[in-house]
Amino acid sequence: MSRVSSPETAADLAAVAALLEMADRLNILPLLERGEPVTAAELAVAAEVPEEGMSGFVSALVAAALLVPAGVKDFRIADDFADRIHESGYLTWSLRANQPYLQNPAAFLRDPAGAAEQFQRNGREVAVSSRWIGSQSFYPAATETILDARPKRIADLGAGAAGLLIDLLGRLPECTGVALDMSAGACQEAARAALAAGVGDRLDVVERPIQSIADDPTPVAGADVIHAGFVFHDIVKEGDVFDRVLRQCREALRPGGIMAITDAVPFAAAERERRFSALFSYLHAGFMDVALPPEEDWLDRFRQAGFDQARCVPHRFPGGRLFIAAK
Amino acid sequence: MSRVSSPETAADLAAVAALLEMADRLNILPLLERGEPVTAAELAVAAEVPEEGMSGFVSALVAAALLVPAGVKDFRIADDFADRIHESGYLTWSLRANQPYLQNPAAFLRDPAGAAEQFQRNGREVAVSSRWIGSQSFYPAATETILDARPKRIADLGAGAAGLLIDLLGRLPECTGVALDMSAGACQEAARAALAAGVGDRLDVVERPIQSIADDPTPVAGADVIHAGFVFHDIVKEGDVFDRVLRQCREALRPGGIMAITDAVPFAAAERERRFSALFSYLHAGFMDVALPPEEDWLDRFRQAGFDQARCVPHRFPGGRLFIAAK
Repeated sequence: MSRVSSPETAADLAAVAALLEMADRLNILPLLERGEPVTAAELAVAAEVPEEGMSGFVSALVAAALLVPAGVKDFRIADDFADRIHESGYLTWSLRANQPYLQNPAAFLRDPAGAAEQFQRNGREVAVSSRWIGSQSFYPAATETILDARPKRIADLGAGAAGLLIDLLGRLPECTGVALDMSAGACQEAARAALAAGVGDRLDVVERPIQSIADDPTPVAGADVIHAGFVFHDIVKEGDVFDRVLRQCREALRPGGIMAITDAVPFAAAERERRFSALFSYLHAGFMDVALPPEEDWLDRFRQAGFDQARCVPHRFPGGRLFIAAK
Repeated sequence: MSRVSSPETAADLAAVAALLEMADRLNILPLLERGEPVTAAELAVAAEVPEEGMSGFVSALVAAALLVPAGVKDFRIADDFADRIHESGYLTWSLRANQPYLQNPAAFLRDPAGAAEQFQRNGREVAVSSRWIGSQSFYPAATETILDARPKRIADLGAGAAGLLIDLLGRLPECTGVALDMSAGACQEAARAALAAGVGDRLDVVERPIQSIADDPTPVAGADVIHAGFVFHDIVKEGDVFDRVLRQCREALRPGGIMAITDAVPFAAAERERRFSALFSYLHAGFMDVALPPEEDWLDRFRQAGFDQARCVPHRFPGGRLFIAAK
């Protein structure tokens, strides 16, 4: 793939990410992302700031083509707003969420364990940037695979705010789901979002770590599809836990059901993904003590857990892969 | 100009900026930027970290195409390293140098003066990111204008580490220069860099703010060219100081000499520059109390100071303009 960026592209992306970070800090993104026209006065109320100040910020967002005027006093988000959020996620994950690592590399290279204790990432910054990167519409592979299986029950491990599940339940009116996440905040947000999307009665939210499935597979029991996004790499180093969780998932699946893991391989070499994959792999290995398994390792782990025909599909996320196996 | 970015572009730029920020924090950029082959051991000494740790970081830089192997144990920077530094400057200026603004917008919208006192930018982060953005080779307009004038003496106001002057003195063997900057650190770096470049005997370094020219124009006396980059906007609000400085510059210039100001206009509307210009203008106006003058204002100020034929040349920097007037 040829290089298509230019200095203006870098300036554009940087400015947009900075303005969106300010919008996030002002708590006005939920109001904007509804897509309806809003006024500076309404945004000022949401942000608890004076209207005059919010008007100035709104003018900057209009100048930057993130908002467009919609009537005399109204504004709405530009057509490419979702793309802009998604792109900005890569910048805020790299430069903001990982800031404690970027600013203290010498400490980590001298004493990884001590530095890891001293310099910790901000959970909210990690969650917000991951959500921006992870907007489902940019990654159709998992969605399509799951829809093709016509499932009646879907479990998502490490579901976060359940964006994937809520999207799927909206498209599959007879399907139910279970969202498992170890974060209480994510679970609350998942329950809230499911209600708002009208699928609250079909989604169970379970606050538990993925490791718990090794000893108690109840949450995944009877699923046609079990998906896990970027959580299996967290348990790679925990002895046989990975194998026990994957084996339990296989046993819990209905006959013909599928296991789908979205995760990352280390140091993907393709031109399209080598730079971000290098950062992602290096920070996980050197700063988070997570050695991402290579593609062949992922496939081996499926085989060891009793799956056959596991396959690997490239993912839009640089270094990301979708591993799929049928029971 | 059509939009050429893609999600991979954002991921690429973000990862590269993050890795370069780590390299900067490890103090290995000066060694790398020489362009000679280096070993991980040499880089480890410069960073004062264990060689094993530095080897891991070097491997990540190779995986990200920022370094390339050059022999068994040697590495050198990739051919596009300077471009990567330049692009990263936009990201680190926007997201790192301005972080106190981005993370506290509500405080600034409620009480700009109080917030400005409480949340201040880190001078080093501003200087490093500005230097990355400002690499002279990316902005040929000022260099070409000055070279065309065949000057014998050049003054640069707000010269920083004197990158522009050192480049010009290298190309003009009979020319001398004076670098004026209010930062002691920048002046020390300018003197060091001029010596290293072999032009130390032809460069005077003067530690003074630009405002001082209003009462004492000695540093600019007898120059054929006076350049000022991104400093005049700092004195816009200081009553008649702007006018007095510019008038003194005109009087100090030799007949036929030229005044060249590189600076910014607010909220430039062209598609190429509107996003970054919006951020730059908004942060200056709302967070740094600097109202950038529109293009016509800049030209008026030249006229008021006694210049005629002032003209405005677009600058590669989004929102940047080069204003040129002959005496």
